[in-house]
Amino acid sequence: MLTWKIAPAIACGNTVVAKPSEMTSVTAWMMCKLLEKAGVPPGVVNVVFGTGAKAGEALVCHPDVPLLSFTGSTLTAQRITERSAPHCKRLSLELGGKNPAIIFDDADLSQCIPTTVRSSFANQGEICLCTSRIFVQRGIYSEFLKRFVAEAKKWKTGNPSDPTIDVGALISKENYVKKAQAEGAKVLCGEGVDPLVLPPSNQKGYFMLPTVIAEVKDESCCMQEEIFGPVTCVVAFDTEEEVIRRANGVKYGLAATVWSSNVGRVHRVAHRLQSGLVWTNCWLVRDLNLPFGGMKASGIGREGAKDSYEFFTEVKTITIKH
Amino acid sequence: MLTWKIAPAIACGNTVVAKPSEMTSVTAWMMCKLLEKAGVPPGVVNVVFGTGAKAGEALVCHPDVPLLSFTGSTLTAQRITERSAPHCKRLSLELGGKNPAIIFDDADLSQCIPTTVRSSFANQGEICLCTSRIFVQRGIYSEFLKRFVAEAKKWKTGNPSDPTIDVGALISKENYVKKAQAEGAKVLCGEGVDPLVLPPSNQKGYFMLPTVIAEVKDESCCMQEEIFGPVTCVVAFDTEEEVIRRANGVKYGLAATVWSSNVGRVHRVAHRLQSGLVWTNCWLVRDLNLPFGGMKASGIGREGAKDSYEFFTEVKTITIKH
Amino acid sequence: MLTWKIAPAIACGNTVVAKPSEMTSVTAWMMCKLLEKAGVPPGVVNVVFGTGAKAGEALVCHPDVPLLSFTGSTLTAQRITERSAPHCKRLSLELGGKNPAIIFDDADLSQCIPTTVRSSFANQGEICLCTSRIFVQRGIYSEFLKRFVAEAKKWKTGNPSDPTIDVGALISKENYVKKAQAEGAKVLCGEGVDPLVLPPSNQKGYFMLPTVIAEVKDESCCMQEEIFGPVTCVVAFDTEEEVIRRANGVKYGLAATVWSSNVGRVHRVAHRLQSGLVWTNCWLVRDLNLPFGGMKASGIGREGAKDSYEFFTEVKTITIKH
Amino acid sequence: MLTWKIAPAIACGNTVVAKPSEMTSVTAWMMCKLLEKAGVPPGVVNVVFGTGAKAGEALVCHPDVPLLSFTGSTLTAQRITERSAPHCKRLSLELGGKNPAIIFDDADLSQCIPTTVRSSFANQGEICLCTSRIFVQRGIYSEFLKRFVAEAKKWKTGNPSDPTIDVGALISKENYVKKAQAEGAKVLCGEGVDPLVLPPSNQKGYFMLPTVIAEVKDESCCMQEEIFGPVTCVVAFDTEEEVIRRANGVKYGLAATVWSSNVGRVHRVAHRLQSGLVWTNCWLVRDLNLPFGGMKASGIGREGAKDSYEFFTEVKTITIKH
Repeated sequence: MLTWKIAPAIACGNTVVAKPSEMTSVTAWMMCKLLEKAGVPPGVVNVVFGTGAKAGEALVCHPDVPLLSFTGSTLTAQRITERSAPHCKRLSLELGGKNPAIIFDDADLSQCIPTTVRSSFANQGEICLCTSRIFVQRGIYSEFLKRFVAEAKKWKTGNPSDPTIDVGALISKENYVKKAQAEGAKVLCGEGVDPLVLPPSNQKGYFMLPTVIAEVKDESCCMQEEIFGPVTCVVAFDTEEEVIRRANGVKYGLAATVWSSNVGRVHRVAHRLQSGLVWTNCWLVRDLNLPFGGMKASGIGREGAKDSYEFFTEVKTITIKH
Repeated sequence: MLTWKIAPAIACGNTVVAKPSEMTSVTAWMMCKLLEKAGVPPGVVNVVFGTGAKAGEALVCHPDVPLLSFTGSTLTAQRITERSAPHCKRLSLELGGKNPAIIFDDADLSQCIPTTVRSSFANQGEICLCTSRIFVQRGIYSEFLKRFVAEAKKWKTGNPSDPTIDVGALISKENYVKKAQAEGAKVLCGEGVDPLVLPPSNQKGYFMLPTVIAEVKDESCCMQEEIFGPVTCVVAFDTEEEVIRRANGVKYGLAATVWSSNVGRVHRVAHRLQSGLVWTNCWLVRDLNLPFGGMKASGIGREGAKDSYEFFTEVKTITIKH
Repeated sequence: MLTWKIAPAIACGNTVVAKPSEMTSVTAWMMCKLLEKAGVPPGVVNVVFGTGAKAGEALVCHPDVPLLSFTGSTLTAQRITERSAPHCKRLSLELGGKNPAIIFDDADLSQCIPTTVRSSFANQGEICLCTSRIFVQRGIYSEFLKRFVAEAKKWKTGNPSDPTIDVGALISKENYVKKAQAEGAKVLCGEGVDPLVLPPSNQKGYFMLPTVIAEVKDESCCMQEEIFGPVTCVVAFDTEEEVIRRANGVKYGLAATVWSSNVGRVHRVAHRLQSGLVWTNCWLVRDLNLPFGGMKASGIGREGAKDSYEFFTEVKTITIKH
Repeated sequence: MLTWKIAPAIACGNTVVAKPSEMTSVTAWMMCKLLEKAGVPPGVVNVVFGTGAKAGEALVCHPDVPLLSFTGSTLTAQRITERSAPHCKRLSLELGGKNPAIIFDDADLSQCIPTTVRSSFANQGEICLCTSRIFVQRGIYSEFLKRFVAEAKKWKTGNPSDPTIDVGALISKENYVKKAQAEGAKVLCGEGVDPLVLPPSNQKGYFMLPTVIAEVKDESCCMQEEIFGPVTCVVAFDTEEEVIRRANGVKYGLAATVWSSNVGRVHRVAHRLQSGLVWTNCWLVRDLNLPFGGMKASGIGREGAKDSYEFFTEVKTITIKH
């Protein structure tokens, strides 16, 4: 009796229908042009433009679409899951994060501070992997905060086409900072952008300076909700046990950063954080072969060379009598 | 820079909360006794008794249950998916089937007929892997039907504790046979059970003789819906291309059986069937290491040594700067 | 305690020292030119020209060469193994074959005969995967032999640069055919090449017509030793059990071909042949992802995407206390 | 065209012929009794007693033994490789070691010293994984040496059946210590055992006290050759770069130990050591699922759940036309 699992060798490839966010249609359209130029045959990669409510929902509910890979907000993922439920669709979900950085008092601050400014404000904080909760051990809290704010203030907001600019326009308007202030938090930097520094073509854009918030409670919205903007909170902690509990105290579990020179501590903390990705003494170092994705409300499944291959493969077990 | 995926070596095991069907509570309770006797520590395997609506739903919606492995109906799976959506839970779903057997005119009928009777009526047809649509190539259709019905009639229905009995009581009452007759199908065998053959203790049970239905259309309820009882349909086909299309023409995709002595045909058909499992010239030969599970409405994910291990593992990617 | 196996992510690549056969130096030299043109940095791929006794042996015995991947004869492999023994080198050996084709009486001869002529004589029989022992079931033996010889005679030997020519010059001179005749075998086709059909530039080459030998015993040199030329033996067999035993009755175990339309037979025979590769009803269909290599004296190890990757990787297990 | 690699599902198990060392025959004979008692069928595990030269060599050269898994000395492995070369046998070799411990000045000595005494003298140093070269950073060298010798002196040598005894009899007699003294090394502890402390039944055994050697050059026999006894060398080093080079400066590459509290250093050093196994801030913590084995003259191949499974499996690639 021969029994085998069909090997990759005979797996047929899949065609794709992609729906980009309606806020990034132009980039997706440029991608289409490149695919066409590269000679991808018609019908292999299909891009559908439109809103989530119309184009997205049509795909999610279509009986001929057997699986869905979605990158976006946890709320949209919930709707996708519900709407696709009658069709038993496989889902890969890469959702939001509320990513902690944990900085122990034996961290190398000369490396830690510029990297944490970058992990907070890169791409205006509009990367799902950006840091937005910085836990600093009490002994170095004051010094860290002073140097961190000074570094953040060096980042220049302005015309995103200008190569000397660090922070460009945000994709949409929302204001978490006022909510934080209403809850008693202290805004250390991040005053409004002077419209006069912006070129006329950008004056209607949503610009925001890198914003650092302190004296904020763990349960405040700024410490619990994903902002997806250049806003980061800095709070103090005392012990390893405490900081693990507080870092895990959000619904998300995407990425975390640990700064310490001690080998035991780094491994203990990395091991106990509820986070699909952990960087220690660095940030955003990626190997595309390794699993990428989040725990808890940050998603389901992992992407990466082998993980994606397996997600897009439907396994068949054939048994042949001989 | 060291980057690694946490190896199985350090994966912690998971504790389990199991909720058996309310129709099989006694078996589950006996299992609990065995686990206790085997020395499984308290709290590791926890069994909760109750209905799906109460006990099941409580588990499905509980924020501390990060994944759900469910075996049952496609309808219940849909509800589980919807209700668990806000919590981003990983799901493994082993659902129903409407499993075809495809019998070509070069099949060895001396093997095929008893095996197909068994695949149709074993455990009263109450196995998700049971055959309920038998496609027979036209040249051998009459002969097959005659011999198949004769074999089916040999199966004895009665007291399930009697070792000479083949078919015991069903778990619940429903009647697809009358629906089939209303749609014009012909019932070749399966007349009611004489209550006098049953011991007094079984006379209130739901007993049914192995039932063979012919002259039934592909779109009829008996050919589309999962009956989960000792009822099978036998229909004729002409070509390989046709039978693949018809076999794939249901919403389910769990298990299929192919009977032919020709090597090319067996592999071509096995390759094109939309079915997580395919048996050729045999049925229910299983290796628990190999992936088990269905396509389409028959489920999401696979079970098996490696597949289950991966489903119950939450992968973490840790990157350490050195 | 974290324990992990270093993931591929951090594996460093290896540089290579390649020594081509001294009989194919020009091709290897052309390859070097292409690598240079492709921008491979100096020192990454290094090609050393020379004989096995000098250049080869120097590499085999060099303490800084931790592993050896060799493709060639079983005799040379034996010497490599012995000479490298003091250095504990990992070896991947792709060696010779004496590959059987097994043709049952239900085979589709219209497919089988041209494919088996090709598998016998392609590239003058100078492929390690070429067929050189053809076992034909007795009922079709005479017909097979007649049609096979007729087909073999259609192959034209001559100037290898002429696109209408099928069989070019051999790489070296040797004569197994006379040995076979001395042992009583009958040569059905393969008489000498008329030098006048060859252009002047080829008249010193070693040319040979496709040669078919019959009435040869299993223990004769033509049925036991690798000829690596356009010479194939055709013998009759009666039963499946017998032919498996005879096909396995050589020291090699590289590739085998099975021809039958019966699914059970094809799988049974494929399963029992001592052969790293088995093709059924086809020949030389390869997927470079799948393991390639031989059993017994045909080699050690497998090549292929994953297998080669693993061979060239030295695994390290690191355990870190936390 | 279906191509697949035979899945584990159909792999047949192998029978085993084991030849234990002639110095441990009684243990192996007791194992046989246990296997018999456990119901292992006759012929599955076969144990052959005898010397390497006779019983071992017969197995190594036997044409029906397709692979050899050997644990023992590098010298014997060399002979096995040479003698098996004509038969193209797959080899798994677990050989000797000359395992370094590297102790940086930020190591936690309260953990490091007792663990390194244990890693040096456990089982009389007769474990292939035992430490025999201890590199201590210069700043803590004197203190380490003093405390290490004090700890080593606490280990009691004597009757191995007495549970209060730490060091029993050695398996054979040899004397590296005199060679070391001849080369100028200083023996800090390890004076001869007073035979009177031994019970009469042990007075002919080879007993030796835990022996610590200092002031020994890297190129001396005690620092280069495997002693396989309770003898360890302690030397000083200055820099990370230097100690990596010196630790790698032997022909072996089995196991290494690194002691430091610094995360970057631990990972850098572990990454660059030529050693199949690295323990950091611990020793002999094993997970039997993970790859086990050495680089360089310490062996070929790895053992462990998956690695051993693969070594004992001969892969077959079958391609079926459909």
